Amino acid sequence: MAFDYEMKKRLRNDCAEALIMSADEAAKLIEDGMVVGVSGFTPSGYPKAVPLALAERVKNGEEIHVELFTGASVGPEIDTALVEAGIVTRRLPYQTNATLRNAINAGQVKYIDMHLSQSPQYVNMGFLPKPDVALVEALAITEEGNLILTTAVGNTPTFVKNADTVIVELAMKKPLALEGMHDIYITENPPHRKPINICHPADRIGTTYVECGWDKIKAIVISDFIDKTRPLADIKEDERKIGENIIAFFKEEVKAGRLTNELLPLQSGVGSVANAVLYGLIDSEFENLTCYTEVVQDSMLDLLRSGKATMASTTSISPSPAGQEKFFEEVEFFKDKIIFRPEEISNNPEVARRLGVIAMNTALEVDIYGNVNSTHVMGKKMMNGIGGSGDFSRNAGISIFTTSSIAKNGDISSIVPMVSHVDHTEHEVMVIVTEQGYADLRGLSPKERAVKIIENCAHPDYRDQLMDYFNRACAAAPCQTPHILDEALSWHADFEKNGTMKK
Amino acid sequence: MAFDYEMKKRLRNDCAEALIMSADEAAKLIEDGMVVGVSGFTPSGYPKAVPLALAERVKNGEEIHVELFTGASVGPEIDTALVEAGIVTRRLPYQTNATLRNAINAGQVKYIDMHLSQSPQYVNMGFLPKPDVALVEALAITEEGNLILTTAVGNTPTFVKNADTVIVELAMKKPLALEGMHDIYITENPPHRKPINICHPADRIGTTYVECGWDKIKAIVISDFIDKTRPLADIKEDERKIGENIIAFFKEEVKAGRLTNELLPLQSGVGSVANAVLYGLIDSEFENLTCYTEVVQDSMLDLLRSGKATMASTTSISPSPAGQEKFFEEVEFFKDKIIFRPEEISNNPEVARRLGVIAMNTALEVDIYGNVNSTHVMGKKMMNGIGGSGDFSRNAGISIFTTSSIAKNGDISSIVPMVSHVDHTEHEVMVIVTEQGYADLRGLSPKERAVKIIENCAHPDYRDQLMDYFNRACAAAPCQTPHILDEALSWHADFEKNGTMKK
Repeated sequence: MAFDYEMKKRLRNDCAEALIMSADEAAKLIEDGMVVGVSGFTPSGYPKAVPLALAERVKNGEEIHVELFTGASVGPEIDTALVEAGIVTRRLPYQTNATLRNAINAGQVKYIDMHLSQSPQYVNMGFLPKPDVALVEALAITEEGNLILTTAVGNTPTFVKNADTVIVELAMKKPLALEGMHDIYITENPPHRKPINICHPADRIGTTYVECGWDKIKAIVISDFIDKTRPLADIKEDERKIGENIIAFFKEEVKAGRLTNELLPLQSGVGSVANAVLYGLIDSEFENLTCYTEVVQDSMLDLLRSGKATMASTTSISPSPAGQEKFFEEVEFFKDKIIFRPEEISNNPEVARRLGVIAMNTALEVDIYGNVNSTHVMGKKMMNGIGGSGDFSRNAGISIFTTSSIAKNGDISSIVPMVSHVDHTEHEVMVIVTEQGYADLRGLSPKERAVKIIENCAHPDYRDQLMDYFNRACAAAPCQTPHILDEALSWHADFEKNGTMKK
Repeated sequence: MAFDYEMKKRLRNDCAEALIMSADEAAKLIEDGMVVGVSGFTPSGYPKAVPLALAERVKNGEEIHVELFTGASVGPEIDTALVEAGIVTRRLPYQTNATLRNAINAGQVKYIDMHLSQSPQYVNMGFLPKPDVALVEALAITEEGNLILTTAVGNTPTFVKNADTVIVELAMKKPLALEGMHDIYITENPPHRKPINICHPADRIGTTYVECGWDKIKAIVISDFIDKTRPLADIKEDERKIGENIIAFFKEEVKAGRLTNELLPLQSGVGSVANAVLYGLIDSEFENLTCYTEVVQDSMLDLLRSGKATMASTTSISPSPAGQEKFFEEVEFFKDKIIFRPEEISNNPEVARRLGVIAMNTALEVDIYGNVNSTHVMGKKMMNGIGGSGDFSRNAGISIFTTSSIAKNGDISSIVPMVSHVDHTEHEVMVIVTEQGYADLRGLSPKERAVKIIENCAHPDYRDQLMDYFNRACAAAPCQTPHILDEALSWHADFEKNGTMKK
């Protein structure tokens, strides 16, 4: 490709030209046994050309194994292609890819399921090996050799800081207008760490670029790839009801004087329930909303378009393919309404606690005492991972977990006697919401919680069965948290044996 | 008691004299159905005369029930006397009292087991009812009617702020020299909250008094009580070895360049293991240590005396009776070495994360994947509560959990296939230490963790049995976190039936 006028807007130093090479050539910088840190968070802002070239090398007979550190989930060009090629031996801190999920559960890939905000700290403090190579999708490289990122920040600043070799994929299809929307700040290691001076989601504390320098950049690959974001799923009836129940809860909080019509900064997980809530807010009396979250999807863009929300702080934007196209056309409108931050900041406990975010995350299952499993199917198989849900919920002003009350056509009750894996404990789960209603657990003892969760959240088909367990557990021995140990996990065991939790 | 010269040093406005009354009279300000917030954290700095008088009223036939909010555990004058009298209907956020524990497990007292740092936020944000009465042990009352606290801050600032009625117990037996050691700061509610500007444990951000005002003070009770602190227990052989193993871990961290000889600010739980670690540090190469913790006990005072530690930030000091006496004699020495903060600050996620504290807390049991139960005996009976362990460990630079590998003369293995209750999840438990050794879990997948925990931490009597479970679980179905659901809690069930976990 000629080093033309358009290219000079993206590569702002003449020394860049000598670094331009094909993805195949760049992939040769990645050697067997290396730790590779890639940009991206959700299928957004991740490198594509070099991973595909790397997979190709292995298909052609080379033996290459790497440990792969990401921001969160990334696209199939990484998690499908590299995993199918058998390249990935260890992977962190989050994923959502079917191929990778199968390889994790099969024991082919060692998976470290981490609080996202802690993943950069683990690298910076030396708890994990430093990446040998940082592989980064960028919009442009400044005259000084600093990187302007694209649609996600994730852990890129930390990987670039710690790696000696940086490979840049220059994303020609992403508009240069995104420049200026990033706010890059890396915390010092303790004991030198300073306050993260964000008191409002709109506060800026960093630079618009990731510090790098030409000495580290060993390859620039010109790329026409775009992110393989997920199509927008229809909002199902249950999800719509969950959204309505959350908004009903907000209204009660306002009535009780605990929230105002501006609520508190919203964090919402990914998917249809999040979309249902945010679309519900567009048609509500709430106003001047803000978001302090990790992913912006179509619904949040619409919330910003509607004027109901004034701005969103995030580490990634990951709308549907159609939503992505529309966003690129409207970047100028969103320029003062979205800030992209490193996930160490977007998910930081300090900031989440200070802002008092309303954390809304999904549960796989919830038990009658308010413990939440958000990662392990039947306590054993990894679904996706904890992601940022712990970062937010543990430090939230209000933490909300949502789930449909049943799954698998009613053969699974999402409300169980005891969850088969715990990611969020009774100590920090404040509100459970299903399509049946919500249970506000704040200030309740375990036994009070049980009655409320069963009555308000469980599916009617399972209420008697749950209450029967609870009553027998209470009768068996007086205690703080009644359980029958032989039976606590029997609902899951029954499902495995009989295909249903129904007794 | 005459309003003499000594008294004027403690009651610095003449209007105080009219408020002096007996504990019996003051106790009449507490009415049936009220919420009472008391000062104190650990058996330190808590009111004594008025609770005893209140219990007396009930013994004499009055019907009084209250909800009782504290800082953490308090002394028997509250948790034994009021509970025996049947006065307490609901209690939060922490306790360690045998009488209260029995009443909680019997269902007579509803107990909300909370992250300590969240308890003041729950009151300030209206998630819990506001205390009607704040009952506070104080050293002195300033001319403006502000309160100088004694040996603990706990939740007192929040209770005083929210209550309309404040009853003061003036602790004549505690030296006035304590004045100036407190640093009182209350966070605003979101969205108006500002950074908590502590970058070193010695940083001060607040006032030396709790803002109150004469209009709120409805009674002053002159008290000669002192705190019923716990006697110092001997350090057992297992506990000594756990201390040694923690220090061995520190040395490895220094060798690997992840810590310096100054370590990071230490948070250590209560009890003999904490004492063993801190005494071990006195005889070590580590120096210029600091503490950012919630309780200072004898060993930390000795660490300060030795010069190995330069200062300790805490919310309470709770040494043995002999240690208390010695501390009172040496207050001037400790005056620039100890800061008492509200538990919202001593335990704050923001500050713990920034400072990168080394959090050392005890576990009741740990499972092979690194989940920790620190509250529920056999998953059901409340022991004490989570206290500050979650505040610290979730935001620590390094989180360490300790336990003896066995209990009940070897009939209980503290390392189990699956913990019967989860307070700390695999996502934030970094290092497990028993008398057998330590398991550094950072960066390991669940299956790698299992092998390390079994080999390094489990008691030899249980290693084969644990490895047998793990191997059979691995063989049963490929997955991220192998378990046999029918068997996962069978060790606990076996102990209940047969008195031993041995198969």
